[in-house]
Amino acid sequence: MRDRSKVLKARGFRWQGVEVRQYKADDAPYKDVRRQTLLGEGEGEADLNFITRYFEIQPGGYSTLERHQHPHALVVIRGRGRVVLGERSYDLAAFDCVYVAPGAVHQFEASGAEVLGFLCIVDRVRDRPELVAEQP
Amino acid sequence: MRDRSKVLKARGFRWQGVEVRQYKADDAPYKDVRRQTLLGEGEGEADLNFITRYFEIQPGGYSTLERHQHPHALVVIRGRGRVVLGERSYDLAAFDCVYVAPGAVHQFEASGAEVLGFLCIVDRVRDRPELVAEQP
Repeated sequence: MRDRSKVLKARGFRWQGVEVRQYKADDAPYKDVRRQTLLGEGEGEADLNFITRYFEIQPGGYSTLERHQHPHALVVIRGRGRVVLGERSYDLAAFDCVYVAPGAVHQFEASGAEVLGFLCIVDRVRDRPELVAEQP
Repeated sequence: MRDRSKVLKARGFRWQGVEVRQYKADDAPYKDVRRQTLLGEGEGEADLNFITRYFEIQPGGYSTLERHQHPHALVVIRGRGRVVLGERSYDLAAFDCVYVAPGAVHQFEASGAEVLGFLCIVDRVRDRPELVAEQP
């Protein structure tokens, strides 16, 4: 059997052969978020049971406030920002890790002057996010 | 149910509450490799089906030449080095990604003057590595 191993070279937070996509295709509220799927959906990668994505949020941007049953494992690899995690929120800087437990409401924000870029790993088979209404 | 979400703050490639361990406990050949398990084995993290580890290899060091049936997803987050992947080898720099397919022989080396540090994500339930003899 052909060895399907590979290296994806990085250049400025873009990766060889990886498309930069909008964060979500539906009309959930978010601002200035892009995603790249690094490993798990490419050719020959079906043996991975988890998907490694890179999300980048521009200064002032934020992801959707949402929850779901699948957990997230995140590692920040660029810039700074903030995460809402249940009823708390935390500052984030490079290499901080975040565990989003099943059902936890969460939102990521590039709250300062810097881009926030993070890896987010999830199960290949997972439930869809449920939108959470902002508190008035 | 208590929300088990958490943030692990990073400081110089060490993480709050995460132990720095030797790479392997058995006598497989390797040199100057340390590991930290960032997410997946801590308290309240049993819902993660995959484990996010950080490996760091000092200049001149290398991991064991081995293979196994579980795939690896890697993202380099520090320094430079090289990976042997089947019959080929590749230079690695920060943010390069590596997919190690099932059964592929692989070895990571901090081949230059820099430390090589990378995230390596694997299934929680996985087979044990099989040592591969170096070619004479």
